[in-house]
Amino acid sequence: MAVTLKDVALRAGVSRSAVSRAFTDGASVSGKMRRKVEAAAQELGYSPNALASSLTTGRTKLIGLVSNNFKNPFFLQVFDQFTSGLQDRGLRPLLVNLTGDQGPEESVRMLRQYSVDGVIVVSSTVPASFAASFENANIPVVFAFARYNGSENANLVGIDNEAAGAFAARTLLARGYRHIGFLGGPDSAVSTLDRLKGFAAEMAAHPEVKVSHSFSSEYSFAAGRAAMLELLDGGDPAEVYFGADDVISIGALSAMESMGLKIPGDVGILGLNDMEMAGWENINLTTIRQPIRQITSAAVDLMVSQLAAPDRYPEARLFPCTLIERGTLRALNGG
Amino acid sequence: MAVTLKDVALRAGVSRSAVSRAFTDGASVSGKMRRKVEAAAQELGYSPNALASSLTTGRTKLIGLVSNNFKNPFFLQVFDQFTSGLQDRGLRPLLVNLTGDQGPEESVRMLRQYSVDGVIVVSSTVPASFAASFENANIPVVFAFARYNGSENANLVGIDNEAAGAFAARTLLARGYRHIGFLGGPDSAVSTLDRLKGFAAEMAAHPEVKVSHSFSSEYSFAAGRAAMLELLDGGDPAEVYFGADDVISIGALSAMESMGLKIPGDVGILGLNDMEMAGWENINLTTIRQPIRQITSAAVDLMVSQLAAPDRYPEARLFPCTLIERGTLRALNGG
Repeated sequence: MAVTLKDVALRAGVSRSAVSRAFTDGASVSGKMRRKVEAAAQELGYSPNALASSLTTGRTKLIGLVSNNFKNPFFLQVFDQFTSGLQDRGLRPLLVNLTGDQGPEESVRMLRQYSVDGVIVVSSTVPASFAASFENANIPVVFAFARYNGSENANLVGIDNEAAGAFAARTLLARGYRHIGFLGGPDSAVSTLDRLKGFAAEMAAHPEVKVSHSFSSEYSFAAGRAAMLELLDGGDPAEVYFGADDVISIGALSAMESMGLKIPGDVGILGLNDMEMAGWENINLTTIRQPIRQITSAAVDLMVSQLAAPDRYPEARLFPCTLIERGTLRALNGG
Repeated sequence: MAVTLKDVALRAGVSRSAVSRAFTDGASVSGKMRRKVEAAAQELGYSPNALASSLTTGRTKLIGLVSNNFKNPFFLQVFDQFTSGLQDRGLRPLLVNLTGDQGPEESVRMLRQYSVDGVIVVSSTVPASFAASFENANIPVVFAFARYNGSENANLVGIDNEAAGAFAARTLLARGYRHIGFLGGPDSAVSTLDRLKGFAAEMAAHPEVKVSHSFSSEYSFAAGRAAMLELLDGGDPAEVYFGADDVISIGALSAMESMGLKIPGDVGILGLNDMEMAGWENINLTTIRQPIRQITSAAVDLMVSQLAAPDRYPEARLFPCTLIERGTLRALNGG
């Protein structure tokens, strides 16, 4: 039989309400009383029921962690960091996978049923209506790896994707490339669209450079590979591509190699993210690093702040990107 | 203001208890009453509180999904499949990351606080005491990708790791290799120990073959790479290695290539798992496929059966492995 609060109260010789207060964060109870209750609880092997106590505190400490892309290995690092980051703050991640049969509406309903204290959306492709549902329900939301366009009325953490696209363009121009392709993720992903916008704006000042762009069907190895095979097959490929994500770029790299092209002699590629596999020597992808750990850590901080002060003013926290030089771009001197 | 059960009862013109029953699986309520309540709930935007209802049903539908290795990309596929598999059954994954500061004891306490209906342990390296705690608390546990040794009194799903090790040995012997190394994960991982046991037993019948074995510090690219660099540096490397996991093998492959060795001409490597990256053409690892989808799906089935009948007899479901031929072993004719 499970040990109940009543058993603990009997053993400690105190009221049930005192036991309840001893296990409620911030409730009024003397140190002596708390120690008495904790000793009795330990003797009996009693764990307070977080869900029952949530009915009085109004807090479940559950945070929905919502994503719709489990095909991008980038997300393993992200889930690792979010899960341990939330755990360190006493919060618990309820993982929601939007890639299954469950639609966004059903997920919102489910998360509301579980009375999650907040939701972290980890995606640049979750529909906007999804976010609006949480706002309507007064559930705090933090968007991680999301779009920043200067006008959002929400907590978000990420990079400035336009700035990252412009940075990629400048990086490739500086190496003397004169035919440059942009290979994006799906054209429904705001991350891809914003990176393309920044990339194209920078290129507009260089009419001497030939520019093209195309998209992949999703952020995955297979989609990046298929898109690059099509580009190489179509004739007149670019000298270098900015693959707007590492997994796309690694797929594209694989397509280039399978066509017998030498990297970076025949064709170059630049990724974005710096996920673990980009650094594997078998792959050795030159890429623009998105500071993943800083972003997940800031998202957890924002969630904690928002829970502590539901009326606080929303903010965007943006982090700069850096170039990680490896083996897939020609050297800076243009050689 | 949040819509409550009371508001729905008023709108539907029924008792609060009727509303409660309409939202409880298996509770006695007429079809007409249920439709009335559902219509009122929809009009008001009411979601029943799963946690409050768990206090009456004794079921939270939360399943702890516990792992301690987020460094192995293999787990991204596993989390994807578990999360959507549980969602499809109306269950919700509460993700627990044992790699952070949170120890096993704290995780057990936390999962008990959340009154999880069951726990799926996704690891071959979680301490045995962890499992015992759940059994003591009468919380159903299913072990996925776990050790099977013929005597376990628990639900488990996976491969027969000894048989897989023997299969690897036979595969390498059939190709004429006469100096064969085993490169395991950590020597605390039962998966590594069982694979080594089956591998060594098969090799014992072949005294003409030189055999060696070594371990990596963890299941990660970096650990596999470091272990292989040490082996190559030590002189007298084997002709081929059985890396007891894909991520170890890909790390080892990277070390071989960085030393200028040709694969499979100078040295060969055989992995195990067939995770996505093994099939990336940049990597192209010959490997033993562990049927990941069948294992996750069977683990969810076992959990559902166990929840429906807590006293059912535990079972082990084991799946055979197959060889996936790619580019890192010499051909079968010994050439």
